[in-house]
Amino acid sequence: MSEIKGTLYGVGIGPGDPELLTLKAHRIITSVPVIAYPTMENGKVLARAIVADFIRSDQIELPMPLPFSVERSSQPYYDLAAENIAQHLTAGRDVAVLCEGDPMLYGSFMYIFNRLSHSFATEVIPGISSTFASAAMLGAPLTYRNDVLSIMPATLDAEILSDRLAGSDSAIIIKLGRHFAKVKQVLIDLNLIDRALYIERVTMSNQVIKAISTVDPTAVPYWAIILIPSQTKPS
Amino acid sequence: MSEIKGTLYGVGIGPGDPELLTLKAHRIITSVPVIAYPTMENGKVLARAIVADFIRSDQIELPMPLPFSVERSSQPYYDLAAENIAQHLTAGRDVAVLCEGDPMLYGSFMYIFNRLSHSFATEVIPGISSTFASAAMLGAPLTYRNDVLSIMPATLDAEILSDRLAGSDSAIIIKLGRHFAKVKQVLIDLNLIDRALYIERVTMSNQVIKAISTVDPTAVPYWAIILIPSQTKPS
Repeated sequence: MSEIKGTLYGVGIGPGDPELLTLKAHRIITSVPVIAYPTMENGKVLARAIVADFIRSDQIELPMPLPFSVERSSQPYYDLAAENIAQHLTAGRDVAVLCEGDPMLYGSFMYIFNRLSHSFATEVIPGISSTFASAAMLGAPLTYRNDVLSIMPATLDAEILSDRLAGSDSAIIIKLGRHFAKVKQVLIDLNLIDRALYIERVTMSNQVIKAISTVDPTAVPYWAIILIPSQTKPS
Repeated sequence: MSEIKGTLYGVGIGPGDPELLTLKAHRIITSVPVIAYPTMENGKVLARAIVADFIRSDQIELPMPLPFSVERSSQPYYDLAAENIAQHLTAGRDVAVLCEGDPMLYGSFMYIFNRLSHSFATEVIPGISSTFASAAMLGAPLTYRNDVLSIMPATLDAEILSDRLAGSDSAIIIKLGRHFAKVKQVLIDLNLIDRALYIERVTMSNQVIKAISTVDPTAVPYWAIILIPSQTKPS
């Protein structure tokens, strides 16, 4: 058994476009012996798809199954994933855990980090978040000077959403899915709807931008974002 | 004179570590004929320093002087920079405008974008923001599930800071500099000081992490950040 433990890397791989990996993420992914990534029970494996062209056949792949339903506890799934990763680290093999977007912002890697970072050398590589990438793709400057930006999930109750939006100069609402109609009504009530921009699957090959008034509320994917840019008029 | 105009690229180059450029930013920077970047009247040229190893001698460099004092209007400076960039674009040369962090989050590029994106083909390349990079470097997961994150500048009045912090589950306070003492007092008043983490010059070679209680308020750089991670206890 090896005396020297491997290093755990939490690697942000960005929102979808493989070219939005950082040079550092690319270097680590192409050099580690073990690559772990979340997979959904329904078969969706977005993280691996983003870096598919960079993975070599001599690297060990370690899928981390996660429950599809949010109602089911993900705790035993992360326990098992952490256990599998720990075995490689203990044997002296570095492991890169892929994480869509940025690892520390609603990232699946945080659950692995909390379980293993006290026992193994751990390095987190920040990634391009879909939040800021949305602003780039929409051509919408987010914040000037003294502006406050809030990032929030669409899963919040209408009352909380309304309260948080009222206290921000600009906002990004993520994970829209079946919560779109609720969010749209809140934006109408707050008189924010005319400023709201809508984007699906930011930087992926099937990215869609459309006017919020034309969005079918029954067909909004989880990977949809609404952005409220700053109203500040800079000179 | 060329019939085909050049493309304007707003390129996020991340918080300081050159390895945190994206593959796309690297490709564009190494392939365009003209590279523009902000310079401060006091001689500080951070953006160029980050990509110094990637710039070749056959590329045209276009410094964009900006006023050092925040009291002086930056409008004429941006007008001139946009004019200089427009000349290259009109002559058919692509121009990459470097922007520290992410171009759409308090970015200097937004002022160029507002002046030129209606006249020239424009593409914005998102970059690693110092905000999320701070979470990675501090090993501090930011937001879980239903958490709301707010990003705000330390330049805000204490009352507004207090109000915005009270309405967030996690927060990132940027541009600390001489505003540190005010921010610290707000955090004490809100009982947030024990959760607050402090980092200077994130991912730069002279990055510093220290306990907030040990920070000398008279020696806090502009590039300092306070992070309040989520209190959510995930399983």
